[in-house]
Amino acid sequence: MDRRKFVKTAGIAGLAGTAGLITACGNQSGTADCGDGSTARSEETFEWKMVTTWPRDFPGLGTGANYLAQIIGEMSGGRLTVKVYGGGELVPPFEVFDAVQRGTAEMGHGGAYYWKGKIPASAFFSGVPFAMTASELNGWYYYGGGMELYHEIYKPFGIIAYPIGNSGTQMGGWFNKEINSVDDLKGLKMRIPGFGGEVLKRIGGTPVNIPGAELFTALQNGTIDATEWVGPMNDLAFGLFRAAKYYYYPGWHEPGTALEATINAEAFNALPADLQSIVVIACKAANMDMFAHFEARNGESLEKLLDEHAVELRPFPDDVLAELKGASLAVLEDQAAADEMSGKVWTSMKAYMEQVRPWTEIGSQYFVNRR
Amino acid sequence: MDRRKFVKTAGIAGLAGTAGLITACGNQSGTADCGDGSTARSEETFEWKMVTTWPRDFPGLGTGANYLAQIIGEMSGGRLTVKVYGGGELVPPFEVFDAVQRGTAEMGHGGAYYWKGKIPASAFFSGVPFAMTASELNGWYYYGGGMELYHEIYKPFGIIAYPIGNSGTQMGGWFNKEINSVDDLKGLKMRIPGFGGEVLKRIGGTPVNIPGAELFTALQNGTIDATEWVGPMNDLAFGLFRAAKYYYYPGWHEPGTALEATINAEAFNALPADLQSIVVIACKAANMDMFAHFEARNGESLEKLLDEHAVELRPFPDDVLAELKGASLAVLEDQAAADEMSGKVWTSMKAYMEQVRPWTEIGSQYFVNRR
Repeated sequence: MDRRKFVKTAGIAGLAGTAGLITACGNQSGTADCGDGSTARSEETFEWKMVTTWPRDFPGLGTGANYLAQIIGEMSGGRLTVKVYGGGELVPPFEVFDAVQRGTAEMGHGGAYYWKGKIPASAFFSGVPFAMTASELNGWYYYGGGMELYHEIYKPFGIIAYPIGNSGTQMGGWFNKEINSVDDLKGLKMRIPGFGGEVLKRIGGTPVNIPGAELFTALQNGTIDATEWVGPMNDLAFGLFRAAKYYYYPGWHEPGTALEATINAEAFNALPADLQSIVVIACKAANMDMFAHFEARNGESLEKLLDEHAVELRPFPDDVLAELKGASLAVLEDQAAADEMSGKVWTSMKAYMEQVRPWTEIGSQYFVNRR
Repeated sequence: MDRRKFVKTAGIAGLAGTAGLITACGNQSGTADCGDGSTARSEETFEWKMVTTWPRDFPGLGTGANYLAQIIGEMSGGRLTVKVYGGGELVPPFEVFDAVQRGTAEMGHGGAYYWKGKIPASAFFSGVPFAMTASELNGWYYYGGGMELYHEIYKPFGIIAYPIGNSGTQMGGWFNKEINSVDDLKGLKMRIPGFGGEVLKRIGGTPVNIPGAELFTALQNGTIDATEWVGPMNDLAFGLFRAAKYYYYPGWHEPGTALEATINAEAFNALPADLQSIVVIACKAANMDMFAHFEARNGESLEKLLDEHAVELRPFPDDVLAELKGASLAVLEDQAAADEMSGKVWTSMKAYMEQVRPWTEIGSQYFVNRR
């Protein structure tokens, strides 16, 4: 008997048997101990789509989506392939959540605060003004109860989400006038999503949220007066320095913004256990990878913005930051009072921050201030 | 024909065919596109050992080793299982590197600076005095050329290494007297590994390196006068507060210590491509996981040390830190001049730090100082 032919036939028989995820040793789970020291896996393959809120291949964000898809494909040996779509290719950027809910795509890649119109509490899972750095936030997600709450808010929508990257502390944004007092922010039409936008509104500005890909044009043609986007690497890539003169820091509104993968729960539950594990762990590895990417490239991009493009770098004055902080806390408390899930999440975050901040103060913060 | 029996037989035939990693569709790679839309994988299973420098299940470090083994097992669907050994169970803590080199164990879990007697440049890959925070260091590892250098230094030993965790900024250590000037460190016999120990030696102290598990006894019976270990979570777990009065910060000598997995290259190369990918990506996910673990637990452990154990928390005086910084830079430059690989690594780190630090200053550092 020709063994090559035999095992090929067996492979097809195995595949035929996978309607109920029956594996090569005949049981009903995706992965199995065959009881004879060998293991066998479902031969079923899965082809997923990932829709994103970013332009295809956009540095850090789009490439982060590519990376996540790539490692899922590699670790699964091709059993689960994920095809990535840039924003607008399959669905518009801000329809990513709906597309994943409907199952048009099995995965989405974006930011949780983009869905705050539908789920108010979602804004807590990307960036919270004057709250946590990326490192602190990851502690909350994985070891501080954040992940459980994250899963809870999306459960009614049939979606499971994981953090899959962090931009680090963002920049304060691009302006065509100097910001010397909070009055300079009044009346300003600025692209700033999530809680940051609510804070701007509270102090008299007009926040708008438009997809990243439209920012440069909107700023250049005066549709908006100012914009924040991400940080040096991404802001350089969009050429925002060509449409505004002043580049402000710090990103008080997004001190460590988590990006997210949304997953259609039904599609996830249809995977065998090993592929489910691959998806979940790939998200965690992607989280590390994207954060490292931003850390490494923001510095050189900042250097380019300053040296090659003569950008005028400015800190927000301390009294402006103090007023923004007051307005931020008021916005957060108001939302926590108005929406039950928001209240639950904000309470969890505050309890965690009360413990993590004293540690930051004598740890990394104390060190960087004296190195 | 009974399909269950048939596929079981086929599974065994597949296994029998794996001597040359022949898969269920008969080709020679570990994972394969069978050409009919299905894929198949090697049925070969691998049982690895992971030796560690930590006590079994030690919080953060030992549990980090367990986590790494666990996710490799889960993602591989049991095709690659990794059994974790605490320090001393299979080999003594400081023989982990040798054990992985010999193939006694396929993996090791420890810290790169433990091998500086054998490979001087290894000390750069864990913690470098007055250098980088965890976030900055991860940028260097994954996107700043660090990983390539890491692989280069271990290649002659048949070992591949990856960062698999970070303690964050460590604490300065436990002392039984106040440190008011550098003179107070002179003559001190202190457990402090890596470059930190070299710096202590340069200013007149006596560094020793002993495994973590022996620290409490050594400090209590006077074998050492002082010790640093990790940070609040780990120091609390060893009960070091019972053997010393003063707890100093910051950990100038280890501002963001990377832990490492060492892998026997021959064992790694024998894996099919999908399992290789699973090992590499598991290391990256474990890196994120352990760092988050330390971030989340150090705060509550610090609270316990202060509130329940009345530990006296002290900052090193600024002039002591300034002198330690001068001595640190001298030690690093001297080693870079004396050892070619160390010179190469330190040059890479310095170039990276020149770009990343201005970013930290206007990003996370500026933010935490004003939140």
